[in-house]
Amino acid sequence: MDVGGTKIAASIVDSSGRAGLKVKISTEQHDTARSIAQVAEIAHRVALESGISWRDISAIGVIVPGIYYTATGQVWAPNLPGWDHIPLRDALAERLPVPVVIDSDRAAYVTGEQWLGAARGLTDVIFLAVGTGIGAGIISGGRLIRGAGDIAGAVGWFALDPRTKEIYKRVGCFESESAGPALARRAAGGLTTEAIIERARHGDSAARQIVEQTIQYLAMGVANLVSVLNPQMIVLGGGLMQAGDLFLEPLRREMLQWAQPIAAKQVRIELSALGEDAGMLGAARLAFLGTES
Amino acid sequence: MDVGGTKIAASIVDSSGRAGLKVKISTEQHDTARSIAQVAEIAHRVALESGISWRDISAIGVIVPGIYYTATGQVWAPNLPGWDHIPLRDALAERLPVPVVIDSDRAAYVTGEQWLGAARGLTDVIFLAVGTGIGAGIISGGRLIRGAGDIAGAVGWFALDPRTKEIYKRVGCFESESAGPALARRAAGGLTTEAIIERARHGDSAARQIVEQTIQYLAMGVANLVSVLNPQMIVLGGGLMQAGDLFLEPLRREMLQWAQPIAAKQVRIELSALGEDAGMLGAARLAFLGTES
Repeated sequence: MDVGGTKIAASIVDSSGRAGLKVKISTEQHDTARSIAQVAEIAHRVALESGISWRDISAIGVIVPGIYYTATGQVWAPNLPGWDHIPLRDALAERLPVPVVIDSDRAAYVTGEQWLGAARGLTDVIFLAVGTGIGAGIISGGRLIRGAGDIAGAVGWFALDPRTKEIYKRVGCFESESAGPALARRAAGGLTTEAIIERARHGDSAARQIVEQTIQYLAMGVANLVSVLNPQMIVLGGGLMQAGDLFLEPLRREMLQWAQPIAAKQVRIELSALGEDAGMLGAARLAFLGTES
Repeated sequence: MDVGGTKIAASIVDSSGRAGLKVKISTEQHDTARSIAQVAEIAHRVALESGISWRDISAIGVIVPGIYYTATGQVWAPNLPGWDHIPLRDALAERLPVPVVIDSDRAAYVTGEQWLGAARGLTDVIFLAVGTGIGAGIISGGRLIRGAGDIAGAVGWFALDPRTKEIYKRVGCFESESAGPALARRAAGGLTTEAIIERARHGDSAARQIVEQTIQYLAMGVANLVSVLNPQMIVLGGGLMQAGDLFLEPLRREMLQWAQPIAAKQVRIELSALGEDAGMLGAARLAFLGTES
């Protein structure tokens, strides 16, 4: 199950990664208790509608758009109203008949791409999600990197320019300069990010310049991940990377200007192969892995 | 054994971290075969002079100022002439009667500090070495982070300023702006880094400004480590950090301006507690860990 800021998606996935019927509902925005109950209900619904008995379901993977605190089983998800230290593990354990494995969406994205996507079988992979925000899921030496407080990968906060701005303090320097909204902020005349992308595709020089400025910081952020973690691959996903063809080549080129040269030659930069399914498939994989032992 | 660019230090360390007699010799600079033989000879010498039989020595840990390739057992150490893909593991196995564990100095520094120093017992620790260069040793989730090609931690290459300079391409942006030589480069009139530090201590305003500019980038680099890895502690070591008292407080303060706010509150920034012994003690610890199984 992929719990997002606006939608919850669920499906039954087998151990080879084949997904069945996919159920998608809008996330309840006003009642926290209700939105938690929704997560359990959609699990029951997908089982029922798929005609699969709970006896044949080994575990449920649930991913959330925020932080999952492994020690307490609580979730903080800033885009879900009221989801501040929600005891999701206990709430779901009460309502569901099989083991539940919870994790962050970032952990699922990288796990999904490593299982079935662009980074299949690799041991050192980073998923860089560039959408309304920027965050990374990291697998190093075959293991998920969590950090001491379960918030590793908060790379939207990478410091990339000493000429600080007010907005850096709110969302981080890298995110301010390279997430989706950065393009609209750079444009005069209230253009949306989508409109700028569209214009850049058609050769509009002002729009192209905005894309280039965004790529400049994106390349620095990607390079920093390369230098510190020496991954085999960085997979780019998230909303802005739906226009990834516009970003990929210049990004690869500029990354080489910044990263440690040996690590820069070893890494591949690729677009997500699973798209929006990365989360759900990663959740399934995390559920299999989390209940194997 | 700590093989450095100019010295090799060796000692016998027991399983609780007590070190005996320390032997130190100058590294042979002109003959690669000779410098490799030196490493084996000093091991024999320290055993002999300590009066300890090889029967009572479980393993030898050797750390090198560069990259240790775990797959091939080779070493690349740019400051040791000719040490380019030297088959050190095989060379030492032939010459020494006990198992040899080789690793990079960065791996040893963080391991030493985690074993006996500032970060005792922590699971998520980064040792940031700031000397003539900048590099990091990283322990995350209790394990050393190596990267796909054994060169993780090359954070001297962190991109911290889009206004690129020629020198960034040679040694990396972060290293150019914050390693020891950066201070001398910022000074007019051929002052050494040591002289600038001395003047800054005595309140010289030009010298203080140079230190502040260096700290600005240092804080950005430290913040990036905090955001991406969410460590419990970052331990500062290396030559420049012998003047760490001058850097520590402003660095802590400025780091808070950049790093992910929750991770920034969770991390402690401390000076190395082991100083130049971090490497040798870490080497011993790596030898114990590497031969335990």
